[in-house]
Amino acid sequence: MKKRHLLAPGPTPVLPDALLAMARPILYHRGPEYEALLGRVRDGLKFLFQTKHEVLLFTSSGTGGMEGTVVNTLSPGDRALVIRSGKFGERWGEICEAYGLQPQYIDVEWGRAVDPDTVAAALAADPAIKVVFATHTESSTGVLHPIEAIARIVGKTPAILVVDAIMSLGVADLPMDAWGVDVVVGGSQKGLMIPPGLAFCAVSDKAWAMVQQSRLPKFYFNFLAERKSLEKNQNTFTPAVSLVMALHESLAAVRAEGLAALFARHDRLARATRAAVRALGLELFADPPTPALTAVAAPPGIEAGAIVKTMRTAHGITISGGQAQLKGKIFRLAHLGYADESDVVLCLAALERTLTDLGYPIKLGEGVRAVQEVLSQAG
Amino acid sequence: MKKRHLLAPGPTPVLPDALLAMARPILYHRGPEYEALLGRVRDGLKFLFQTKHEVLLFTSSGTGGMEGTVVNTLSPGDRALVIRSGKFGERWGEICEAYGLQPQYIDVEWGRAVDPDTVAAALAADPAIKVVFATHTESSTGVLHPIEAIARIVGKTPAILVVDAIMSLGVADLPMDAWGVDVVVGGSQKGLMIPPGLAFCAVSDKAWAMVQQSRLPKFYFNFLAERKSLEKNQNTFTPAVSLVMALHESLAAVRAEGLAALFARHDRLARATRAAVRALGLELFADPPTPALTAVAAPPGIEAGAIVKTMRTAHGITISGGQAQLKGKIFRLAHLGYADESDVVLCLAALERTLTDLGYPIKLGEGVRAVQEVLSQAG
Repeated sequence: MKKRHLLAPGPTPVLPDALLAMARPILYHRGPEYEALLGRVRDGLKFLFQTKHEVLLFTSSGTGGMEGTVVNTLSPGDRALVIRSGKFGERWGEICEAYGLQPQYIDVEWGRAVDPDTVAAALAADPAIKVVFATHTESSTGVLHPIEAIARIVGKTPAILVVDAIMSLGVADLPMDAWGVDVVVGGSQKGLMIPPGLAFCAVSDKAWAMVQQSRLPKFYFNFLAERKSLEKNQNTFTPAVSLVMALHESLAAVRAEGLAALFARHDRLARATRAAVRALGLELFADPPTPALTAVAAPPGIEAGAIVKTMRTAHGITISGGQAQLKGKIFRLAHLGYADESDVVLCLAALERTLTDLGYPIKLGEGVRAVQEVLSQAG
Repeated sequence: MKKRHLLAPGPTPVLPDALLAMARPILYHRGPEYEALLGRVRDGLKFLFQTKHEVLLFTSSGTGGMEGTVVNTLSPGDRALVIRSGKFGERWGEICEAYGLQPQYIDVEWGRAVDPDTVAAALAADPAIKVVFATHTESSTGVLHPIEAIARIVGKTPAILVVDAIMSLGVADLPMDAWGVDVVVGGSQKGLMIPPGLAFCAVSDKAWAMVQQSRLPKFYFNFLAERKSLEKNQNTFTPAVSLVMALHESLAAVRAEGLAALFARHDRLARATRAAVRALGLELFADPPTPALTAVAAPPGIEAGAIVKTMRTAHGITISGGQAQLKGKIFRLAHLGYADESDVVLCLAALERTLTDLGYPIKLGEGVRAVQEVLSQAG
């Protein structure tokens, strides 16, 4: 018998109260019970996004929310700026190009954060840019981008700032209204601790003005239609009712823990993980790192895929390898969502065993000791 | 204490085995267990769609599958033919128009089926038509359209036939390959007895050839990308994993019951419901009716909304009213998905009580007696 632990960067393990909610008899999405539930969910999402604006809800993966944002803010021929520093930054560009737009790119070395000055320079050089597409946590590299500084720069221009926060919503602080971010895109299967299938788009007044003008084609991901439906506590199209029932529980858990405690928990787990990785003599890949996950360079002579596979088959732990150009070169330990100190302890214990299994020289116990030291100081 | 019964045309009650599957620890969508599960789901979907072709799977409502079909088969300026006989036929046209297409329409009186000869005439008059968009069960009116006859006509032309079978997949027979239907769109929350959140698109070779040429913009709903992913038992974007786990159970139940028994059960429940409605002196709205649901004209002097409300508040039964121009004029009793004889009995018993509550003269017991007679003959 071997217990299985899911420590990949999404989906994360599901909150038990959310699992139970999904097992209840399903609600009719055009009835009063669902409408009351959706009303509370709308409030909870505003709390989580730290915004007074409506948070739109779509049944799709996070990518659907990204596509929705592109097609609801832009028109044919519009100028856009995409910050590319990994697979998910690239996705903004791929979506724009799929709709015939030719965005300008700021390319950043994978594993590093964008320099906000380069955003200022790009906007100064092309004042026609209407939308800046950024990523909060770039999941493929584990980097946390400086959104607050970028928001300050974009806020001084007519452009809007759109942020993919799918990996860091409820994980790293992103006070949308206080920082002046215009669109924040989130997903259900990360910090929210429920299964994948819901995307969220919070939209500022400055962005809504652009939505009113947007002429790219759209139907399923229609922001204006969805806002109108939500005002009546309905969804435009049949929503993933069971996931909304789960979301209701998850948002209650978020509110009970409190945002400050939520962010502090993720920060603590991330610092413990990074300390352990260093204590084992391994190299951290991301600078600066996100609190959502820790990307680790595979040590010399070991393919990252072998680490991922041994973690899973010999020790019951599901982690992730690298994507695209990082395949084989890094592995990613996630510590977000329904994750606590015990998860970091067992993850690092398994990593020590895995490295030993693979013949890489480490001192057993050194990683876990570093975890313990950080957690003990934090307590 | 009053038990609640969901007899609206979707979502239908969820199969208990599917509820239990969703409560299991969630699977990582890039791991071997999910890939094995998805492999079995792909087989099960082909069985249900009665096709040898791949059935694509998207995390969205059924409408997402409809939009996906439009943007993956057509190009700017293409000619299309839309059969409109209710809210969901209209939706095909709305999606086409959202993408700048100007389809030709065949308008059919709501509550009646399209005459296949009008499709033949439209195709003869405009040989440039590339896609014919039809609806199997028009949920808003309760009509079942003659897809077999339409497929025979379209099959003789270069055009493809696309059918919205969201309401009738696993309810009314639609042998895709035998009839020569080119794209069949389905959803998870109807005959499949699981929560909403998954859309399915089965695609014929003739349709794939058109997909290869299609130049409408697309990203999230990309047929070629999803087919490529599915061939490796993966999804392009993070799928609604818990719903796919539920689908796995539902497809097993479908296979265990067998398609012939599945269609016979729905036919029996529909005939019993229609007999009871007539026995109560009420008028059936749809001709010919679908086995998925029974649309009933509200009797003179009674607003359909009052029937829906009294059924819910006084008798615990959730049914649906009319949509759009039929609001207030009809109510809809569903008998699809996880529904059996006892559901029809309790629905008609509650309808008798409701009509009596509202002062409409009926003889208590006459509806249920008609149900019993049909079920007893069928047995």
